[in-house]
Amino acid sequence: MQTWIRFRRPDGDTAYGRLDDGDADRVIECDGPGYTDPRPTGNTYSYASLDLLAPCEPGKIVALWNNFHALAARLEKTVPVHPLFLLKPASSLAGPGDAIRRPSGYTGKIAYEGELGIVIGRECRSVPLGEAASHIFGYTIVNDVTAGELLNADPNFPQWTRAKGSDTFGCIGPAIVSGFDWRSASVVTRLDGTERQNYPLSDIVFSPEEQVSRLSQDMTLMPGDVIAVGTSIGVGSMKDGSVVEVSIRGIGSLVNHMRG
Amino acid sequence: MQTWIRFRRPDGDTAYGRLDDGDADRVIECDGPGYTDPRPTGNTYSYASLDLLAPCEPGKIVALWNNFHALAARLEKTVPVHPLFLLKPASSLAGPGDAIRRPSGYTGKIAYEGELGIVIGRECRSVPLGEAASHIFGYTIVNDVTAGELLNADPNFPQWTRAKGSDTFGCIGPAIVSGFDWRSASVVTRLDGTERQNYPLSDIVFSPEEQVSRLSQDMTLMPGDVIAVGTSIGVGSMKDGSVVEVSIRGIGSLVNHMRG
Repeated sequence: MQTWIRFRRPDGDTAYGRLDDGDADRVIECDGPGYTDPRPTGNTYSYASLDLLAPCEPGKIVALWNNFHALAARLEKTVPVHPLFLLKPASSLAGPGDAIRRPSGYTGKIAYEGELGIVIGRECRSVPLGEAASHIFGYTIVNDVTAGELLNADPNFPQWTRAKGSDTFGCIGPAIVSGFDWRSASVVTRLDGTERQNYPLSDIVFSPEEQVSRLSQDMTLMPGDVIAVGTSIGVGSMKDGSVVEVSIRGIGSLVNHMRG
Repeated sequence: MQTWIRFRRPDGDTAYGRLDDGDADRVIECDGPGYTDPRPTGNTYSYASLDLLAPCEPGKIVALWNNFHALAARLEKTVPVHPLFLLKPASSLAGPGDAIRRPSGYTGKIAYEGELGIVIGRECRSVPLGEAASHIFGYTIVNDVTAGELLNADPNFPQWTRAKGSDTFGCIGPAIVSGFDWRSASVVTRLDGTERQNYPLSDIVFSPEEQVSRLSQDMTLMPGDVIAVGTSIGVGSMKDGSVVEVSIRGIGSLVNHMRG
């Protein structure tokens, strides 16, 4: 396992780095994202001193719906036979500590959705299931923020992209962990300190490898692209000023707040 | 009006250029896309000799649904009060002359949809209607290709992104024309030489300026992003080997074929 981050250096430039295996507070700056097989630049930093950014810059964020058995049962929906997804644009990206901003003119509810995120490491086009794992660089955490009342505002067209695509609605971080064993992990979401989601990733419908294989039949996935694997039960809405923390042990905690 | 293209140079590199006002066969190579206010490199080429590429490289392609009165009437749908849209990923981009490829494993119908495309020239975030025009670099042509039978394959989730997001399903070109007067233009689509669509852009529900203003409330639009403004009546399916040509007088003709 290696932990990769993206951060703002003291001089204001953005940079990539990985945590030193032997000293979790030591960040070894590298000359590119982890999936490019980067070299150390020679600079090191104290992790605690850094301003973290979203750990990658995805060209697209694929977000799955109805991908956990417990949520499908709660919603009384059949489990899908192929991943159901929409796209969140790159412009929706937000990093650790960033404010989630209310879309202008929208006064309705805004929901958190704590999720595991897959980070693609190699270009994927029609990848067989048995080869999918080798195209996954690592795993991160996603808060798939949703302006739920936009979704069904038009009777003829569910506005998934509009509801989930606003600037700051794609919160990702704090790190990407390669070699992470998602099968034994849980997603825990706390809203203003109160636990609201706590579900095991083993309840997933399409595993990360199945998602990568099947989505790569639908469209080419590129290095740095993120797949938000879908959420499970416990989704709720945030108030202005709310702090939401999505945690996966082994990856860390992604903390964001609704701008009040 | 200026006509901007992207092309493969004889040495294999990709380049941007504009047509010489006085000699439509003379391409003046520039050191960037038109919306970056580029400078001539000093190279010129014969237009007829060039291998054209999609005229920009959008980070996202926003595709509107139900944006023409005639189509809304035909579908017996109410006209929307806000643009209804999905995203086609950058990976779906195809240029003039490129083959439209059938998604692996999909044996259903594949439809052409001839459309006007808006190309963004300046970053747009909550742009008032009166300022929207200044954020539009120009106009192009889009064939918003759709694997229609995927759309409603799941009873709970219309798969707009999957149906419209496959590689090669975002055909764009042959050029971007700045200062183009869309109000008096029509979109004409020919399938294997037979006219199948011929509709006036004046029938549009949300004008390009309204689209840019309203979409920029929903998400930041970036230079080079493309908005496919939606199609009207006459959509139909292509057979393997079919040639589809979408034309707008003043912009040109975008020709693609289904790979047989």
